[in-house]
Amino acid sequence: MTSADQTTASGAPRHDGRAPDQLRPVSITRNWLDHAEGSVLVEFGRTRVLCAASVTEGVPRWRKGSGLGWVTAEYAMLPRATHDRSDRESVKGRIGGRTHEISRLIGRAVRAVVDYKALGENTIVLDCDVLQADGGTRTAAITGAYVALEDAVAWLKERGSVKARQEVLTGSVCAVSVGIVDGRPLLDLCYEEDVRAETDMNVVCTGDGRFVEVQGTAEGAPFDRKELGALLDLAEQGCVDLTALQRKALGR
Amino acid sequence: MTSADQTTASGAPRHDGRAPDQLRPVSITRNWLDHAEGSVLVEFGRTRVLCAASVTEGVPRWRKGSGLGWVTAEYAMLPRATHDRSDRESVKGRIGGRTHEISRLIGRAVRAVVDYKALGENTIVLDCDVLQADGGTRTAAITGAYVALEDAVAWLKERGSVKARQEVLTGSVCAVSVGIVDGRPLLDLCYEEDVRAETDMNVVCTGDGRFVEVQGTAEGAPFDRKELGALLDLAEQGCVDLTALQRKALGR
Amino acid sequence: MTSADQTTASGAPRHDGRAPDQLRPVSITRNWLDHAEGSVLVEFGRTRVLCAASVTEGVPRWRKGSGLGWVTAEYAMLPRATHDRSDRESVKGRIGGRTHEISRLIGRAVRAVVDYKALGENTIVLDCDVLQADGGTRTAAITGAYVALEDAVAWLKERGSVKARQEVLTGSVCAVSVGIVDGRPLLDLCYEEDVRAETDMNVVCTGDGRFVEVQGTAEGAPFDRKELGALLDLAEQGCVDLTALQRKALGR
Amino acid sequence: MTSADQTTASGAPRHDGRAPDQLRPVSITRNWLDHAEGSVLVEFGRTRVLCAASVTEGVPRWRKGSGLGWVTAEYAMLPRATHDRSDRESVKGRIGGRTHEISRLIGRAVRAVVDYKALGENTIVLDCDVLQADGGTRTAAITGAYVALEDAVAWLKERGSVKARQEVLTGSVCAVSVGIVDGRPLLDLCYEEDVRAETDMNVVCTGDGRFVEVQGTAEGAPFDRKELGALLDLAEQGCVDLTALQRKALGR
Amino acid sequence: MTSADQTTASGAPRHDGRAPDQLRPVSITRNWLDHAEGSVLVEFGRTRVLCAASVTEGVPRWRKGSGLGWVTAEYAMLPRATHDRSDRESVKGRIGGRTHEISRLIGRAVRAVVDYKALGENTIVLDCDVLQADGGTRTAAITGAYVALEDAVAWLKERGSVKARQEVLTGSVCAVSVGIVDGRPLLDLCYEEDVRAETDMNVVCTGDGRFVEVQGTAEGAPFDRKELGALLDLAEQGCVDLTALQRKALGR
Amino acid sequence: MTSADQTTASGAPRHDGRAPDQLRPVSITRNWLDHAEGSVLVEFGRTRVLCAASVTEGVPRWRKGSGLGWVTAEYAMLPRATHDRSDRESVKGRIGGRTHEISRLIGRAVRAVVDYKALGENTIVLDCDVLQADGGTRTAAITGAYVALEDAVAWLKERGSVKARQEVLTGSVCAVSVGIVDGRPLLDLCYEEDVRAETDMNVVCTGDGRFVEVQGTAEGAPFDRKELGALLDLAEQGCVDLTALQRKALGR
Repeated sequence: MTSADQTTASGAPRHDGRAPDQLRPVSITRNWLDHAEGSVLVEFGRTRVLCAASVTEGVPRWRKGSGLGWVTAEYAMLPRATHDRSDRESVKGRIGGRTHEISRLIGRAVRAVVDYKALGENTIVLDCDVLQADGGTRTAAITGAYVALEDAVAWLKERGSVKARQEVLTGSVCAVSVGIVDGRPLLDLCYEEDVRAETDMNVVCTGDGRFVEVQGTAEGAPFDRKELGALLDLAEQGCVDLTALQRKALGR
Repeated sequence: MTSADQTTASGAPRHDGRAPDQLRPVSITRNWLDHAEGSVLVEFGRTRVLCAASVTEGVPRWRKGSGLGWVTAEYAMLPRATHDRSDRESVKGRIGGRTHEISRLIGRAVRAVVDYKALGENTIVLDCDVLQADGGTRTAAITGAYVALEDAVAWLKERGSVKARQEVLTGSVCAVSVGIVDGRPLLDLCYEEDVRAETDMNVVCTGDGRFVEVQGTAEGAPFDRKELGALLDLAEQGCVDLTALQRKALGR
Repeated sequence: MTSADQTTASGAPRHDGRAPDQLRPVSITRNWLDHAEGSVLVEFGRTRVLCAASVTEGVPRWRKGSGLGWVTAEYAMLPRATHDRSDRESVKGRIGGRTHEISRLIGRAVRAVVDYKALGENTIVLDCDVLQADGGTRTAAITGAYVALEDAVAWLKERGSVKARQEVLTGSVCAVSVGIVDGRPLLDLCYEEDVRAETDMNVVCTGDGRFVEVQGTAEGAPFDRKELGALLDLAEQGCVDLTALQRKALGR
Repeated sequence: MTSADQTTASGAPRHDGRAPDQLRPVSITRNWLDHAEGSVLVEFGRTRVLCAASVTEGVPRWRKGSGLGWVTAEYAMLPRATHDRSDRESVKGRIGGRTHEISRLIGRAVRAVVDYKALGENTIVLDCDVLQADGGTRTAAITGAYVALEDAVAWLKERGSVKARQEVLTGSVCAVSVGIVDGRPLLDLCYEEDVRAETDMNVVCTGDGRFVEVQGTAEGAPFDRKELGALLDLAEQGCVDLTALQRKALGR
Repeated sequence: MTSADQTTASGAPRHDGRAPDQLRPVSITRNWLDHAEGSVLVEFGRTRVLCAASVTEGVPRWRKGSGLGWVTAEYAMLPRATHDRSDRESVKGRIGGRTHEISRLIGRAVRAVVDYKALGENTIVLDCDVLQADGGTRTAAITGAYVALEDAVAWLKERGSVKARQEVLTGSVCAVSVGIVDGRPLLDLCYEEDVRAETDMNVVCTGDGRFVEVQGTAEGAPFDRKELGALLDLAEQGCVDLTALQRKALGR
Repeated sequence: MTSADQTTASGAPRHDGRAPDQLRPVSITRNWLDHAEGSVLVEFGRTRVLCAASVTEGVPRWRKGSGLGWVTAEYAMLPRATHDRSDRESVKGRIGGRTHEISRLIGRAVRAVVDYKALGENTIVLDCDVLQADGGTRTAAITGAYVALEDAVAWLKERGSVKARQEVLTGSVCAVSVGIVDGRPLLDLCYEEDVRAETDMNVVCTGDGRFVEVQGTAEGAPFDRKELGALLDLAEQGCVDLTALQRKALGR
């Protein structure tokens, strides 16, 4: 994953010694929970997200009788996942905009590879709870949630709720953040880099290298078409690496 | 704004007769309200958004004493803006994820061109209320909110709260949606096109053609780098047209 | 509508030149929205309320199988309808007492002329959203909502959901405010008069001149029976004028 | 309080034997609570409302430094005050429109006789909790709240927080319901009469016979000016009787 | 109920003259409400709780078709039950932890003596509303709720909804508080004693002297096994006395 | 920790092979998080609770200027901690009674050993998030929270915010559940045992063997004094074992 050339080209290594196009150490631990039909503890460096896939028979009321399944996601953060403690959303009595937004993003990302017909009238909820945050929690969550989803689908097949030959998942999905920090495009930003980034982008890709979601935001100065291109190059490569790690974790 | 060539190239005209790279009729009516410091009724075809800029002296507590101003935005929809009536968020007692997400997007978009130091310790709230929705409500909101913001800044200068020579706004900002519908990249989707789009993208640009925000989502099949490029081309041109319309509305 | 005698009798004209028993310029614009089954932009001077009637088949659960229809109303104000911006009730997470109270009043007012049996098991929701407030928002809302209701009933008849000969509406309904300002009874108070009123009364009348609702409140000194009588006289006349304007708007 | 003539004139006595212009047995018990600065258990027949006046030094933030006091009221109903149990508003997490409306009415009623300057920067909250409901809970609440307010003011004077010679209360206030039932105007409706009333009116009067609030609603057919007059006659007389009972309870 | 010996042994009498093992004057008034199927005003000294039992046919959804009944309880406090006024939970929009906890305790306590099968598919809700608080509100509530429950069951039998010979209640239940104050174990603490208690315990017993619930908390120093024993002794005796008072109130 | 005698005495071993007075395997992992001032992952068998101690300078408003510190706790469960997924309290918009109750219990438990004066005006929040639940989550949370609290106090001392010689903690605290299952008193119930328990008790002890909290509930038949004694015996011994494990984890 290292890239000696680029490091040379763009000068000093990152504060943790990574090359600009290098992911943090990624770890994907399956079956971290005993009760969930699929569960993954995913780590991108110090970012640690617990992804649990819960299967229930049946679908929400508005989808009943359609023969189609449903997949949804919920993202949340423990109060002390961050440097300073944040108040619980359950205590505040309302979910913040950021939480909503990321839950919706994860849901769209994983749904992009689900064949609802093959899933049948089953619902899978993907809970992504951030135990520790150090940048990239939403991309780690998507990357881990996909693996938990695979295990939940396997569970459905073992139980015979879905036919073994059905391809419920039409591909894999993963995500990574990229950004421009001090004028330099970097892959997989940690918190320290994230707060300093002029432009910040989250990219969700399928295993075959196409885009499911591209979300770029100028935090400082607006960015031009060329910078956008450089970020997309980095993100595409990062997703190739993450796809390989997902496959390895799944024993393929 | 029309593009005879492209229409030819890509076959049939759109259901409302537009060329693929053609905006809907855009109307920007300033001073639609009597009380607000800036107000704009912006129309993108049948989409109609009322943008009100409210100025208050002072800033939120966390920013007091910094010498810096603050700009924020709130987006909402009247219950019968849509084809079918939707329940009021005030009645439901909570704001939906979509509302939160769009409010945050509008806020980031307009803040990209604000010089907080020049604004001084004043707060401007931009309320974007959708009176009628026919696709592209968030992009119309951003385009109108910028014009209302200009008027609010002018009001501050007239009153002497901000020095007349200060450049509070470092540029202009506008936004447009693009998408791939039936395999064809289209500019400024109306509702009917939006629900059929395979890929849907919202692009926020500054008046000098750089990106503030790029949000692309695969609604159907994932999209590749080439399709992404075609959509960005369309969006850049649409924003050039919208910038011209904003300038005209502001009498420049 | 003017009343030279009374103006003479009670001295100086009002700050906007009106006679004591004179309505502000009233405008009733039908079909202001494209999607709603009935919609009216009603203006009482600078007060501007958008009234949308939404029809749905069926009735709430507690009324199912009764053969009777249902009509209800919701009132709300855009945050910058007023001189100073007010916080959104959706953001606060709860609806204020004033909003509740006015929604209930509008609902009772329009229900007074509905024959539920003739309506059949259909529901009509009347959304009254104040775009700009300058006193009398609730009375403008009732006056406009009735016209939107007429159009929604016509829509039901065109579609054949209600028989063309059925009289769903047993009459018309409109409303006006009256008050005692500087010891003088005045019709249709604007905001400036409203805040100075010693007594403030909202009166809802049917087109044939009977009362649906009378709500009088002493804001300053209590009022006596004679003052009450003078206010009712003014209100009755105002409602005669408003009824004529409603009929004209409906093309009768 | 009985009126043999009217009973004769209007035919059959009411189901509880009362004349049309006769109040139910009214009982006003002071000092029903040990902790509150003023407290009254007021009964209008089977309607039973506990009114507690709580004094705190100081006023809400928006009134600080004005030298003026503040008086407010909150109305609520125990879940089993009614024939069928109703859900608690604390459990539902929101206050219903009816509760809000009545709380606001009680507040306006008692404030009509308060001299804020004489009260000084003290706040009095009047809690009116309905222990049992049989029609007329809001009018009983106002009638009792006034007496509790008197005791709270006396408490302030005893403590020396308000000068003994200050007239904090400029008069007394009470309230009664009237309505047209089976075509006949009746005073002080119990629940059974209330649900059958074609027109329902709540009237708040000062001790010297002027109006603080008049709220008349057509529940069935609209009402005309003559009927309105008959109801006001009844209400005025009922308030004379209630004022006498309040005076007696206060030992005057 | 007095115990001269113990008073002697432990020195000075309590501030209200009671012996350490003496209950406050207890009063149980049945049928305090006209509408409820069972209702009791229970007083432990100045603590006054209104307990209303509401019967409805049927059970919650999750229990339908089981043939079993359901009993639940809700506890609340009027805002001026306490020395200082507290805000209404309905106004705050959420129920506090203490309220929840006590509601759950009362529910468990009364359910301990209910035979759901004998009750059949009926639901009884026990509303315990504290009108005045002077310590021991939860124990008074349980003691009163049981008596109201008895009356509600009798009502069901009279109506024939439950067979007369069925034993719906397998026993009686009551509760009392005990605590260590100034090193001395005391029965039935009033507020003044409660705030000074080092250890505070609530004990729920059946009429035959067994425990349904024991909740002891060290407010100051932790307590040892011997102190725990002394408190349980006191509580057991207190419950014997309360059981006798319940029986007497029920005419047994 | 095993007790061959008792196993023999009370017949068959437990389904997981434990003796009646045997704890599940307990694991206490310190510093599980990088950001928190103290953090512990505590495991009682398959029950897994993450306890994070967050230090902030200063105290809540009501305690300012007192010179005293403050310690509080919040308990929550991840949605898929349990066998079946439960809805998030943040999504429901309100915290359930059980959550409130356990948060309050943990807070009281740890506060029992805090010397607020020695802590000075610092606040420590103890977040106890259940990652996986298999019975005894509240007792595991208390046991782990104490260790995290120790580490947070050490952090304060290292930073010099508290003097090194100050004894902020007056002792240690831990907790365990006991219950009667199939007539047999058992220590440290797992979920399967917990649902079958006739009586269920949670006991919080200090390291020197005194009680901070005793909460016993009859789930089935009421329990007598002798059974209570047997449960307390078990709990006392369990707490001795847990205290030793806490000391070991802290390297004492």
